[in-house]
Amino acid sequence: MINTALQKTASMLVAGGDGQLSRVTVRNVCFGGEQVPVIAGPCAIENEECLRETAFKVRAAGAVMLRGGAYKPRTSPYSFQGHGIKGLECLARIGEEMNMPVITELMDAEDLPAVMEHTDIIQVGARNMYNYSLLRKLGKINKAVVLKRGISATIEEWLLAAEYILAGGNREVILCERGIRSAETWTRNTLDLNAVALVKQLSHLPVIVDPSHGTGVRSLVAPMSMAALAAGADGLLIEVHPHPENALSDGEQSLTPKGFSQLMRQLEPLAALLGRRVR
Amino acid sequence: MINTALQKTASMLVAGGDGQLSRVTVRNVCFGGEQVPVIAGPCAIENEECLRETAFKVRAAGAVMLRGGAYKPRTSPYSFQGHGIKGLECLARIGEEMNMPVITELMDAEDLPAVMEHTDIIQVGARNMYNYSLLRKLGKINKAVVLKRGISATIEEWLLAAEYILAGGNREVILCERGIRSAETWTRNTLDLNAVALVKQLSHLPVIVDPSHGTGVRSLVAPMSMAALAAGADGLLIEVHPHPENALSDGEQSLTPKGFSQLMRQLEPLAALLGRRVR
Amino acid sequence: MINTALQKTASMLVAGGDGQLSRVTVRNVCFGGEQVPVIAGPCAIENEECLRETAFKVRAAGAVMLRGGAYKPRTSPYSFQGHGIKGLECLARIGEEMNMPVITELMDAEDLPAVMEHTDIIQVGARNMYNYSLLRKLGKINKAVVLKRGISATIEEWLLAAEYILAGGNREVILCERGIRSAETWTRNTLDLNAVALVKQLSHLPVIVDPSHGTGVRSLVAPMSMAALAAGADGLLIEVHPHPENALSDGEQSLTPKGFSQLMRQLEPLAALLGRRVR
Amino acid sequence: MINTALQKTASMLVAGGDGQLSRVTVRNVCFGGEQVPVIAGPCAIENEECLRETAFKVRAAGAVMLRGGAYKPRTSPYSFQGHGIKGLECLARIGEEMNMPVITELMDAEDLPAVMEHTDIIQVGARNMYNYSLLRKLGKINKAVVLKRGISATIEEWLLAAEYILAGGNREVILCERGIRSAETWTRNTLDLNAVALVKQLSHLPVIVDPSHGTGVRSLVAPMSMAALAAGADGLLIEVHPHPENALSDGEQSLTPKGFSQLMRQLEPLAALLGRRVR
Repeated sequence: MINTALQKTASMLVAGGDGQLSRVTVRNVCFGGEQVPVIAGPCAIENEECLRETAFKVRAAGAVMLRGGAYKPRTSPYSFQGHGIKGLECLARIGEEMNMPVITELMDAEDLPAVMEHTDIIQVGARNMYNYSLLRKLGKINKAVVLKRGISATIEEWLLAAEYILAGGNREVILCERGIRSAETWTRNTLDLNAVALVKQLSHLPVIVDPSHGTGVRSLVAPMSMAALAAGADGLLIEVHPHPENALSDGEQSLTPKGFSQLMRQLEPLAALLGRRVR
Repeated sequence: MINTALQKTASMLVAGGDGQLSRVTVRNVCFGGEQVPVIAGPCAIENEECLRETAFKVRAAGAVMLRGGAYKPRTSPYSFQGHGIKGLECLARIGEEMNMPVITELMDAEDLPAVMEHTDIIQVGARNMYNYSLLRKLGKINKAVVLKRGISATIEEWLLAAEYILAGGNREVILCERGIRSAETWTRNTLDLNAVALVKQLSHLPVIVDPSHGTGVRSLVAPMSMAALAAGADGLLIEVHPHPENALSDGEQSLTPKGFSQLMRQLEPLAALLGRRVR
Repeated sequence: MINTALQKTASMLVAGGDGQLSRVTVRNVCFGGEQVPVIAGPCAIENEECLRETAFKVRAAGAVMLRGGAYKPRTSPYSFQGHGIKGLECLARIGEEMNMPVITELMDAEDLPAVMEHTDIIQVGARNMYNYSLLRKLGKINKAVVLKRGISATIEEWLLAAEYILAGGNREVILCERGIRSAETWTRNTLDLNAVALVKQLSHLPVIVDPSHGTGVRSLVAPMSMAALAAGADGLLIEVHPHPENALSDGEQSLTPKGFSQLMRQLEPLAALLGRRVR
Repeated sequence: MINTALQKTASMLVAGGDGQLSRVTVRNVCFGGEQVPVIAGPCAIENEECLRETAFKVRAAGAVMLRGGAYKPRTSPYSFQGHGIKGLECLARIGEEMNMPVITELMDAEDLPAVMEHTDIIQVGARNMYNYSLLRKLGKINKAVVLKRGISATIEEWLLAAEYILAGGNREVILCERGIRSAETWTRNTLDLNAVALVKQLSHLPVIVDPSHGTGVRSLVAPMSMAALAAGADGLLIEVHPHPENALSDGEQSLTPKGFSQLMRQLEPLAALLGRRVR
């Protein structure tokens, strides 16, 4: 199987791996090197106070980048869809205050100029991994992209989605494993760390892990963050909300700032053991 | 399970079913009534001669609408991506010549004006079922939309994707089952006729079936077309290519015009038995 | 894909198909020929009166074989596990009264002598499809076996499980598609009629369909029975219970005798159209 | 989801977890405590020399238990099926020579006396997790059982399968995650470490991980072993073969003794960091 995988990827721009890692650097944060950056923040940007409180606390705990959703892809058209441009501006403002680079999800090419202006990295969500028109446009920009794996995408499809961006000329791509759909109902998704370990061997691209969506269960975020690092992940993307019980989306999987802080203290010695550092 | 499904859909615009079917009429073709329209044509529009030959033959066999891809969502950025606007123009020209309405897939909102101009129905492919930005835009247009089920979408997600279009004001939505991903490797997808029968009970929307993608195997297209009708499908979407062995995409699952003609002769008495008609 | 499938099965005893069907005859019932036998009865044998009532009514409606579970493989050790030998004796008695052959599931080789004595066909349930020790023993007996497809078995694994029985010398094998596990929660399983159509092309073995387990939803049993016939199925296995709301297992998917009778009246003209007959 | 899971398991004998772990002790090896035992050996017992060489080398590297298959559940009836009783005797002999407890898979209750006599732990393979007859018999014995998760079993089904053994009176049960089937083709299975972390919170039973079957790819065994420990696994089950290229089964996923030795040197400091030890 590894031979098939190596052959199939051989002629692709994503090919490489094991010692030939690319580094994607965004301000003072570097993916693909010794650092294992932890990105944290709420699923959705709800209001400025809430985001400021979260940012302040996750930064204190060791997060080096702030996440927050302004455009939310929701299964139902009647669910909260995000605050859009106001959310973006809020994210940018808090990022500046806290001196943290920020990342948000882009759902629509129309919003690209606003997202380019206000964020440091652009995230493509799982639902848009197969949106090749969007990927092609992201191949033409001069900003790093985090490409989440599709809900049931094969590893090959995921690498080829990255290839759409690379082929356009943008080499600043970070892959993000966020769980695949399975028949299991006690977790939201099945976090596939096999994919992380395999992609590290097939590709030079950094790979980060989202244990929040990958499990959907707050109490699993810490053990699976540890597992992700041990499997070779180059970073983590973690949902943190000061009051998860009131969160407008994904409260069930969000850590509290306190829980996040405890996790960071667990991750630090593990990173050290692996020859890496989380800050 | 049916009770859960009924409760969850109750307040949605898609809700209804069993006797309260909506009809979506496109020129002389009606989905959701006595007619079970068969849409046929090549996966991709390759050249005018090939499309004309296919259109002529499928029309003679009983197809009432012509399909053809101008924008192709391909897993690899290096595969043939479709002829774009030239393909669209070609499709419109052949449709006019043959007096057949035409359908094509839209991948990018940028192409909406061109697709609006040249086609009678717009298809949203499986890869874009979760592309809520695109769905929202299609809620604002005055043209029927065929919404394919996502590669591993649940029935609920599929209905909610349709809801995005309906909620925008466009009530001309036709659902299309095209198979879901499973661990089976001897078929390309697992055609889920359970979903067809269930959606007919949950929703007033017409549901058609794509047995070409739903199986990925030419010899399975005929039996699964029969099964789809028997399960209650309101139409079929079938790939036909005059020379499948040379097709630029999906040749393995395309019927020849002769095979398509044989299938139509099988479908006609079945439709009659079910109180419907394919023409 | 079909070529791969044909190559992989070529040297197997199951290989064949399309015109070279084997017939498995059990008393007056024949699988694999013109007849499309319908097997009906309750999931579990609960008591003699209930089974007699069911048998009487399904026979009147056109069922030609009686099913009933004496040994029930239940997910929980604390659920009703079947009445065992008493259930078997009851099934045999009612079968004789009604002059219907009977089928029941075997879970344990220890029960083989009792099941051999009291039933006409032996069913291997989905949970035991990979129980190669049991299959090997069934290869040595002189009685027909219905082999259900495993919960997530590939078609290849299913055919190879049949091969275990054939290789032992027992050629009386009937395959039964009963749905595969998917991420869908609105149906119990995803009935895979692709598999039925494909196996008919790959193998000479008769293939029947269980739409009760394949959907888990009463209102889907009729449309999926129709679809199964249209896809080429050689028989049906349907759960019928006089009082589904009180059934000790699987009530949600059981037809009432009245619903079963309606279904049979739908199936008869379809079978005739396909050149077959249900009685 | 965690609440549903906690409620559903609450009344089960498997319920517990997080600080109330059961210990299963087999001679000098203890699962569920500080020790994280590593079980190693070939997939199948091929010949005495090969097994002796493997045992000697894995013991030297830190394995505390020897595995080897005498009865092999193979997809095809024509594949090598194991050496049976001769294999068992060989395993027992080498175990004694090396002073290592031994584990082997039981496929058929008929072989239980022989397996009881010759091994220290009995393994139930993924294919037999739903074989409730076998589980019930293992509930009556006085020997520890490793229960592998079924190929596509939910966590609930897996815990309930364990419940079958516990309910019979045998409390010496160790769970083993070995990967679930997914649509991914570049790995053999998708190792589900979510399940490991979740079961540790729901149950008092020790949980070990089989990264060899869980990945099917030799180069993934080491990173996924690390990940398993970090996720909380209480042990590992690893295939090692002195000449994987000639192995009669599963060579592609077997480590060489040298590779195993390197892995053990990686695992030791990780276990120490987690407050555990591999020896």
